[in-house]
Amino acid sequence: MEISARNVLEGIVENVEVGAVMASVKIKISPTDIITAVITRESVEKMGIKKDDKVSAVVKSTEVMVAKD
Amino acid sequence: MEISARNVLEGIVENVEVGAVMASVKIKISPTDIITAVITRESVEKMGIKKDDKVSAVVKSTEVMVAKD
Amino acid sequence: MEISARNVLEGIVENVEVGAVMASVKIKISPTDIITAVITRESVEKMGIKKDDKVSAVVKSTEVMVAKD
Amino acid sequence: MEISARNVLEGIVENVEVGAVMASVKIKISPTDIITAVITRESVEKMGIKKDDKVSAVVKSTEVMVAKD
Amino acid sequence: MEISARNVLEGIVENVEVGAVMASVKIKISPTDIITAVITRESVEKMGIKKDDKVSAVVKSTEVMVAKD
Amino acid sequence: MEISARNVLEGIVENVEVGAVMASVKIKISPTDIITAVITRESVEKMGIKKDDKVSAVVKSTEVMVAKD
Repeated sequence: MEISARNVLEGIVENVEVGAVMASVKIKISPTDIITAVITRESVEKMGIKKDDKVSAVVKSTEVMVAKD
Repeated sequence: MEISARNVLEGIVENVEVGAVMASVKIKISPTDIITAVITRESVEKMGIKKDDKVSAVVKSTEVMVAKD
Repeated sequence: MEISARNVLEGIVENVEVGAVMASVKIKISPTDIITAVITRESVEKMGIKKDDKVSAVVKSTEVMVAKD
Repeated sequence: MEISARNVLEGIVENVEVGAVMASVKIKISPTDIITAVITRESVEKMGIKKDDKVSAVVKSTEVMVAKD
Repeated sequence: MEISARNVLEGIVENVEVGAVMASVKIKISPTDIITAVITRESVEKMGIKKDDKVSAVVKSTEVMVAKD
Repeated sequence: MEISARNVLEGIVENVEVGAVMASVKIKISPTDIITAVITRESVEKMGIKKDDKVSAVVKSTEVMVAKD
């Protein structure tokens, strides 16, 4: 399956924190960068996402902002 | 100014493509990863975003999905 | 590849309209429901999305609102 | 009130799960499709959303991705 | 119709700029604040949105970030 | 740091409600308007966001819808 979202960053799950409805997944995409994804607890459970899994962080281009100093 | 968005990835602008309302900005965040940001043409012009600028791609955590093979 | 986005609706592309940066894709998911997806022109071209293609509309749960009369 | 969001899918609430801040609402929009909406607990309470309610799932077009096999 | 989106700000349309697919709508919500909404050209046309219209800017709470100096 | 998000509304924090993963922050931007931001608990803690803080609500233009009576 190919998806239209332009941004797919491969990484390793560093940490999963689960609440009643939502969950936070920390994905290390490089030695210096960690991405935080907030998804449903249901997705974490159905996909069995856990520490050390090889996953990708996926972001639709319209959700990315640009900052400049 | 500090912002609540958890994901701030530093990079260099590779390419800017401008339409009537929207613009696409390609940001190289590592030798292998390029992030596409779709922002308004107005933001590109007001911030003067152009090739080779040092910028950051900023993404709110709730906008990040997780994919797994 | 499995993705954390909870909402995946299968349908047939009814129409594609392409601008300089963005494109609008109409997907018929049932005899009465058409979904509009606004994605980049680049995604439409790279994925070769065109009328009559079998595709899915994918939406992250945090992007869905609820309306009630 | 008319809203610019292009995607309004009518359905019946199948399930509501409430956390401290967020809530998950499952909406059956066809015999085979269920949409998950993650909204605030506050919205669920103020709108009195509960099982068997007739509601609509509303999604802005820029939030819809396209997937293709 | 009531919607779960928590943020509804009333204002007056100051300006509409239309591209091939997207449109930018500037809404004055107070003497000092103007909100920019980027919606589809199709929505602008179907709703007949034009300068001086009384409208509301609507934003889902999960789309709002917080910045602090 | 300048950010591409077009909508920055200054206000005062009225209330912070914290869950396991997410938090709700109410920001009074005018005598009549309160904005609800749903961000991570982690951001609330790292930025030390609390009642009476001077903050801004920040929203990307593509996340704003338009409603009309």
